[in-house]
Amino acid sequence: MARFFRSKAASLGRPPGALVFIGEHRMDRPVLRLISYDAATMEESELAGLDALTIEPGRVTWLNLYGLDDTALTSAIGARFGIHSLALEDVVNTTQRPTLVDFGDYIFVVVKMLRVADDDPDTILSEQLSLIVGPGWLLTFQERIGDVFGPVRERMRKAQGRIRSAGADYLAYALLDTVVDNYITIVERLGEGVEDVDEAVLDEADDVLERINDYKREMNYLRKAIRPAREAIGQLAKLDSDLVADPTLPFLRDLYGLAVQAGEAIDTYREMLTDALNTYRTAVGTRLNEVMKVLTVFAAVFIPLTFIAGVYGMNFDYVPELHLRYGYYILWAVMITVGGGLLLYFRRKGWL
Amino acid sequence: MARFFRSKAASLGRPPGALVFIGEHRMDRPVLRLISYDAATMEESELAGLDALTIEPGRVTWLNLYGLDDTALTSAIGARFGIHSLALEDVVNTTQRPTLVDFGDYIFVVVKMLRVADDDPDTILSEQLSLIVGPGWLLTFQERIGDVFGPVRERMRKAQGRIRSAGADYLAYALLDTVVDNYITIVERLGEGVEDVDEAVLDEADDVLERINDYKREMNYLRKAIRPAREAIGQLAKLDSDLVADPTLPFLRDLYGLAVQAGEAIDTYREMLTDALNTYRTAVGTRLNEVMKVLTVFAAVFIPLTFIAGVYGMNFDYVPELHLRYGYYILWAVMITVGGGLLLYFRRKGWL
Amino acid sequence: MARFFRSKAASLGRPPGALVFIGEHRMDRPVLRLISYDAATMEESELAGLDALTIEPGRVTWLNLYGLDDTALTSAIGARFGIHSLALEDVVNTTQRPTLVDFGDYIFVVVKMLRVADDDPDTILSEQLSLIVGPGWLLTFQERIGDVFGPVRERMRKAQGRIRSAGADYLAYALLDTVVDNYITIVERLGEGVEDVDEAVLDEADDVLERINDYKREMNYLRKAIRPAREAIGQLAKLDSDLVADPTLPFLRDLYGLAVQAGEAIDTYREMLTDALNTYRTAVGTRLNEVMKVLTVFAAVFIPLTFIAGVYGMNFDYVPELHLRYGYYILWAVMITVGGGLLLYFRRKGWL
Amino acid sequence: MARFFRSKAASLGRPPGALVFIGEHRMDRPVLRLISYDAATMEESELAGLDALTIEPGRVTWLNLYGLDDTALTSAIGARFGIHSLALEDVVNTTQRPTLVDFGDYIFVVVKMLRVADDDPDTILSEQLSLIVGPGWLLTFQERIGDVFGPVRERMRKAQGRIRSAGADYLAYALLDTVVDNYITIVERLGEGVEDVDEAVLDEADDVLERINDYKREMNYLRKAIRPAREAIGQLAKLDSDLVADPTLPFLRDLYGLAVQAGEAIDTYREMLTDALNTYRTAVGTRLNEVMKVLTVFAAVFIPLTFIAGVYGMNFDYVPELHLRYGYYILWAVMITVGGGLLLYFRRKGWL
Amino acid sequence: MARFFRSKAASLGRPPGALVFIGEHRMDRPVLRLISYDAATMEESELAGLDALTIEPGRVTWLNLYGLDDTALTSAIGARFGIHSLALEDVVNTTQRPTLVDFGDYIFVVVKMLRVADDDPDTILSEQLSLIVGPGWLLTFQERIGDVFGPVRERMRKAQGRIRSAGADYLAYALLDTVVDNYITIVERLGEGVEDVDEAVLDEADDVLERINDYKREMNYLRKAIRPAREAIGQLAKLDSDLVADPTLPFLRDLYGLAVQAGEAIDTYREMLTDALNTYRTAVGTRLNEVMKVLTVFAAVFIPLTFIAGVYGMNFDYVPELHLRYGYYILWAVMITVGGGLLLYFRRKGWL
Repeated sequence: MARFFRSKAASLGRPPGALVFIGEHRMDRPVLRLISYDAATMEESELAGLDALTIEPGRVTWLNLYGLDDTALTSAIGARFGIHSLALEDVVNTTQRPTLVDFGDYIFVVVKMLRVADDDPDTILSEQLSLIVGPGWLLTFQERIGDVFGPVRERMRKAQGRIRSAGADYLAYALLDTVVDNYITIVERLGEGVEDVDEAVLDEADDVLERINDYKREMNYLRKAIRPAREAIGQLAKLDSDLVADPTLPFLRDLYGLAVQAGEAIDTYREMLTDALNTYRTAVGTRLNEVMKVLTVFAAVFIPLTFIAGVYGMNFDYVPELHLRYGYYILWAVMITVGGGLLLYFRRKGWL
Repeated sequence: MARFFRSKAASLGRPPGALVFIGEHRMDRPVLRLISYDAATMEESELAGLDALTIEPGRVTWLNLYGLDDTALTSAIGARFGIHSLALEDVVNTTQRPTLVDFGDYIFVVVKMLRVADDDPDTILSEQLSLIVGPGWLLTFQERIGDVFGPVRERMRKAQGRIRSAGADYLAYALLDTVVDNYITIVERLGEGVEDVDEAVLDEADDVLERINDYKREMNYLRKAIRPAREAIGQLAKLDSDLVADPTLPFLRDLYGLAVQAGEAIDTYREMLTDALNTYRTAVGTRLNEVMKVLTVFAAVFIPLTFIAGVYGMNFDYVPELHLRYGYYILWAVMITVGGGLLLYFRRKGWL
Repeated sequence: MARFFRSKAASLGRPPGALVFIGEHRMDRPVLRLISYDAATMEESELAGLDALTIEPGRVTWLNLYGLDDTALTSAIGARFGIHSLALEDVVNTTQRPTLVDFGDYIFVVVKMLRVADDDPDTILSEQLSLIVGPGWLLTFQERIGDVFGPVRERMRKAQGRIRSAGADYLAYALLDTVVDNYITIVERLGEGVEDVDEAVLDEADDVLERINDYKREMNYLRKAIRPAREAIGQLAKLDSDLVADPTLPFLRDLYGLAVQAGEAIDTYREMLTDALNTYRTAVGTRLNEVMKVLTVFAAVFIPLTFIAGVYGMNFDYVPELHLRYGYYILWAVMITVGGGLLLYFRRKGWL
Repeated sequence: MARFFRSKAASLGRPPGALVFIGEHRMDRPVLRLISYDAATMEESELAGLDALTIEPGRVTWLNLYGLDDTALTSAIGARFGIHSLALEDVVNTTQRPTLVDFGDYIFVVVKMLRVADDDPDTILSEQLSLIVGPGWLLTFQERIGDVFGPVRERMRKAQGRIRSAGADYLAYALLDTVVDNYITIVERLGEGVEDVDEAVLDEADDVLERINDYKREMNYLRKAIRPAREAIGQLAKLDSDLVADPTLPFLRDLYGLAVQAGEAIDTYREMLTDALNTYRTAVGTRLNEVMKVLTVFAAVFIPLTFIAGVYGMNFDYVPELHLRYGYYILWAVMITVGGGLLLYFRRKGWL
Repeated sequence: MARFFRSKAASLGRPPGALVFIGEHRMDRPVLRLISYDAATMEESELAGLDALTIEPGRVTWLNLYGLDDTALTSAIGARFGIHSLALEDVVNTTQRPTLVDFGDYIFVVVKMLRVADDDPDTILSEQLSLIVGPGWLLTFQERIGDVFGPVRERMRKAQGRIRSAGADYLAYALLDTVVDNYITIVERLGEGVEDVDEAVLDEADDVLERINDYKREMNYLRKAIRPAREAIGQLAKLDSDLVADPTLPFLRDLYGLAVQAGEAIDTYREMLTDALNTYRTAVGTRLNEVMKVLTVFAAVFIPLTFIAGVYGMNFDYVPELHLRYGYYILWAVMITVGGGLLLYFRRKGWL
């Protein structure tokens, strides 16, 4: 199946706004996690169903749904919070392009969460994260249990930084910040490999071509996730909305700067790979020249000599040279002169 | 005939706005299909002629003309709905670039409808679809019977989603949405092929070059249809017109997002193909190096040995070595030493 | 002489606004053609001189000058209609870049008129057309007699379309429309050739490289004429001037769309040619690989065998193998084994 | 020394606005030339020092300084006319990028004056020209005596065109117009060479590569001078300043059009050179293929034949074929068959 | 470790605004240098701690911190001057992308300070410089002792130029000006090398490929530092802030011009390197052709001759030519004719 552009075929022909799960992972049972906090207290719980949800004014409510294949639950959450069906459709379609839509009453953000697989440092896992930020509440949606937000939750529990005293907008920022930090970590990790390849190019190691190809593919893949995320964050930082409090804006601008940095790094690495490929190709051509020079020198020196030897191997009745007393030695002298002359000629040409 | 830029020659020298059919398909008889609906009822009929058309206020009228070669009928429809002759000229010119023009009283949109041929999954069919959206009515024009709108009609019949309760603008959106969904399906299908090629490049399969070439051509072709369609949809989503109701706008913006995604995917695949070609070319160069190394080693090892053998095949009267008791064995020793030395030399150079 | 950037040397050092003819064609006598029309009547005449010109209010006057080397006449026309000397300088300089300048009282447009030579369908003729549109009059200037406007004049004579009832602005549009239609015809004609080349690339026909080169040059040349013309027409369609009546604007916008389409087609064909060159180069490399594999297999199989034969052609007194009863047959067996083994080896490598 | 980016090292660490001469040419004595004119009279003189300068109201004063190494004089001129120290710093730094700065009371323009060397038509000389336009006066600064403004002075003396009756702004325009005219002459001259190269590419003349390289370098160099000059002139044409009179504006816009044309021509020629290099590289590859085919055919035909001859040159006691009555003729038949078969084979492959 | 994108891993998971030192250099003890001046007097001192700092109104205070690993001190400085924690976080993260943020009460600027290493002219050192400009004070932060600001301090001590009479904004400008001057010096130094390489390309010196590769990497590295600095300075020059006095603005615009010039020079050099690589690759291909022509001529001339000699070395009982009286001489004549004919053939083909 295409990695870059996964199938939307399942939803073909459905009415817009119909919730059709498009993804790779199905869960037995979706998990609804609720965190509710203010500066003083914080409660974490797992909800059995949406009925158990109560929203207390004055507190920030963070509802996180793991598991998108049960579209009925997503639909119910949407109904409860008054979310437009198009947003919900995007939530359950995990091939969605990262984007930001301001629906007025709430802001809808989709990004890709990238992280290195725990069991294989060469594998990059990608998962779609949808955030809906409303006044005092934040909904997040993921396909699987397991994310990169452990440190954020830890900071909430320990009431570190401003997270517990700020609103849902700051919480959304904190989550996006973690996502972007992971982008940078991954770009950096790949970048080291790219720089290694760039230095290996002139050594013409056997696998250089394969490695260049692999890194190009990875960089394309990252770019596809990061570039639209950068746009979405840039919009968020410039958004004129009551949902984003003024003190959060500098953080969002800072985050946008980070996303820009990640994007630029990808562009730089892509250019380095293109340059590396060109240099490698040129090095291959240079090496071929060397090989051919060796062949040419060998062939050009010995072919005439072999011809001479062939001539005196002929069985003509009358070949006067054959009967000279020092004919054999004279011939050696001739052959050494010819061979030496050719060697000299090639040295002058700079081929030796 | 040129596929990318089909002939407009037929209309050369005609006054602007003159209706000249430029297309590939002629029908015996054009087909006029009328669908008229409101939230409560829906009627479908095939009209014998334009006279049979009545427009009921409060209902949405969708008039679909299949067959553009009878320009008189198109002209009559234009007269009935007050359409500018330039728009009608574009309707019957099926080489028209996708575009949107807001004529004030109605909006004129041209896109290309792409779909996979029913009988050959490798063939992509392209047909021009013109839409004219007015207050309460929608005109659509196609060259052939047969389209991708079956599911939309089905939704209308079953009154699924909001289609029956919304206006002509939403109907136009629903049709365009189907068109764009098909773009995505086709890009995705080609994309899988591109990704396969990208992985086959280092194996140097025989047909890689041909496949890269084919996919490039297909991608160019798709891009030519999709890029201007993206622009047109983007304009539509930003249009400040009474003809587009506010609730339709989020759907249009969502549609624009899809079109952008399709456009980006094409760009990504085109870059992948360019990269693949470069990698393939480099791989070909690398392979040539290997071939030449083999040739050079064979030639460089045996050519001197053959020369030596040739020397002792000469018929000089006096060649002292020939009469040595162990001359033949000594010579073998010399030849093995020379050959072995050369092999060693090439191994040191890394050619073996 | 440079085709892309013809000499302006003649005017170096002259004061700006001085009329210096820069062109290729001189006429014995310039020709002044006058067409004057309103909805009711139309008069065509050839003027002996400018004195014979009378402008009747309420009619549209189209004055066409063929032959620019008599700068005095151009100057006189300029004086009569109050044209700025800079515009007149551009009129007689046929190397002028296509442009539009709004002088307030009149609009000055320069484009290149391209057409296929009557006697050689492979030759594209280019000529500069200057238009000056004032209230109720249109001046056009060309270097040579003969243009592409026959159909426009015919429409005027037959009073087809709206041309006779509209003003000078519509006439200017009609002429530009003909110019752009010719662009499209030419681009289309070249485009068919480009698509043919694109398909011939993998066959490695002998002249592919030359044809790619030729088409690139043609496309560059077209682009140089069409791109600035597109800009000029775009400006015209957006101009806020009393000289352009509102009903003419949709036609100009439509014309701009055509010019955009022509420009995009050129860009597409240029990309196709670049791709074709790359593919061709890769195909050449692939073919070289095949050639070298053949050479290598031949050389690598026979060179060792020849060496063996050479060994037993040596004249040593004592070579025991030579006296074996079946030595000759054994040697054949050895040689067949060696040769067969090498063939097997190369087949395994995939070179056969 | 770097040609593209000459040393600013001399000024490192100096306070901004300090006058440090950075250039290549020192003069024994700077030369101050004064031209003062109105419509009626014109005076030319060479000033011994700044004290001799009197500015008469109602006349235009053009003060031209040749020789920038005497920074004291530049400084004095600056003081007399109230010029900002940053502008003066740029005047004496001849590595300055072409630019325009509007200081309110005066406009400061820096461009590069390019001209073909009198003694060598292949050498392009570049010199920095700084202009400061104030109300009724114009200061120009050059490193050397000798410029391209002879024709302008001549026009002033002869009172040709509007130059004597217009103000300092028109004079500045006239000088810049001469500068740009020279750009165009030089681009045109190089362009002819580029077009020649483009046509020589398929002939694979020996020096094509060198010529492409030379022209690329020249074009880069020109672009570096012309592109920022184009920007500066564009700003000038759009400037809303009392210093530029309305009647001068059309001339400046016309000049900007010329600069754009020169810039586009450079871009076109650069693309042509890139295309030419690619075509040449492909032609080289094609030629290599031909060479290798010749080698392969020769080698593949004769190597087996030589082997056969070698076999029957062996000295085995018992080789039955050697004693056949027509053995020698039979062998020739065999060899001709083998060789002819191989030739046929290669002809079928299309290598002959 | 990756050079282009250094690790931010240490800060992963920390709350935004937490001060985590990310850098390469740790100091035993940070150094706090204070310079306080007005037009009349100037005091320089090294502060033991922040408590010793007093800010006198009417004087400009420049506080420079060397050593960022003691984040507590940075934090204390931030508290004293009311700096946002995000700015402080960036100060101690030396992998920060050059940027400008206007916090209203102060302006925060980060750039990279590049300079040539004292002990190795081929090594470019990069260090992050953070500037915070407030009303009457300037904070600067560096990782190491040692900078490029010696001349600025010297000018302050000698009260040269306007530095002592202007405010903190001008001081910040003076520092940035020194930074940009160093950019230009370094670009110029590399540029000379690039131009040398560009000229060495056609000589095919052995290390050309390596040098091109090295310069590309350096240029990428410079670009990464200079491009965002250019943006930041451009923003500064356009900033509408009370912190930047009007007389400072022309200096900032001039500085922006310099940064643009440096950026353009890098782009030009990068293009030159790309061109050089392409030319080199083509030259390698051309050289290969020459090598192969030599090989082909040698092989094609001697291989047939060797075959002929082989034929007459065969031991057939009956080979009539062998017994001809002048057979040997006739054969030489034949061989010379064949060889000469082939040489003639290759000369006609242009291979000799």
